[in-house]
Amino acid sequence: MVILGIDPGSRVTGYGVIERKQGKLVYVASGCIRVGTADLPSRLANIYTGISDIIRQYNPAQFAIEQVFMAKNPDSALKLGQARGAAIVAATQGELPVAEYSARQIKQAVVGKGSADKTQVQHMVKHLLSLSGTPQADAADALAVALCHAHTEQSLINMAGQARKTVRGRLR
Amino acid sequence: MVILGIDPGSRVTGYGVIERKQGKLVYVASGCIRVGTADLPSRLANIYTGISDIIRQYNPAQFAIEQVFMAKNPDSALKLGQARGAAIVAATQGELPVAEYSARQIKQAVVGKGSADKTQVQHMVKHLLSLSGTPQADAADALAVALCHAHTEQSLINMAGQARKTVRGRLR
Repeated sequence: MVILGIDPGSRVTGYGVIERKQGKLVYVASGCIRVGTADLPSRLANIYTGISDIIRQYNPAQFAIEQVFMAKNPDSALKLGQARGAAIVAATQGELPVAEYSARQIKQAVVGKGSADKTQVQHMVKHLLSLSGTPQADAADALAVALCHAHTEQSLINMAGQARKTVRGRLR
Repeated sequence: MVILGIDPGSRVTGYGVIERKQGKLVYVASGCIRVGTADLPSRLANIYTGISDIIRQYNPAQFAIEQVFMAKNPDSALKLGQARGAAIVAATQGELPVAEYSARQIKQAVVGKGSADKTQVQHMVKHLLSLSGTPQADAADALAVALCHAHTEQSLINMAGQARKTVRGRLR
């Protein structure tokens, strides 16, 4: 199963693609969509077409994005919202289910500590995916949200398996 | 020339379609895309597909949307940003040029007063387009931004004509 993680931003949108192979999480690709200094419609179109191209190229089954709970100020919240809107629409048009995780959930899943800092997240992403180099910050954040989704999905599958076992146990 | 005006919102997105026929602005259609209480991806997908359908149906040549200068608070700015992102991406995917106008510019163009209130805007939209009934508030705002764009476009054409005349005058 291929998972696409996205870290949207008004200037740079990071993406990370990972795959679960025989129970192991494997790095597929990561990078940044840089929208530069063009006008707003062009920047949003770049995010939309950039993500649509990644979806066509890697054919993910799942899409994960960071949830925003507390935006800093109205101006940056509006800009971030516009980038998120373009990114999420690209996922829905690619018929992908969208999962949202808070920064705390992502840090907890990747580092094991909800209050971990950016460097710790980058380090653990590198370690968990056995990368030779440290990915760029936005790409690392996108890989982290993909890893968080993979862990959460796996926990749910395990819990469902556990529940099934319990039910079976009771039936015996 | 057909103009599509959009008033995006996280719950209701208004749309208004007008056409310039022999120098006169004529009402074509207006209404609301209500996204209800579904999850965020479904709501944004509704805005995107709703506007894409309107673009296919009325084949506008221009797209106008209200510019947001001062958002109220980070939370509502994020939600509005997401709706704007979905709306603007629909315009760019429909290959429409996007024009943005501030609330002040829209009120100035429609009512003649940048500080006009909602009721005055609704009243003037009804009057300018010779409507028999008063359109719903979000639809009226969308028609107002379309009217503002039509007026601005016409002013630019007039100014260009004036400039051409001046140049010609000078050449004689």
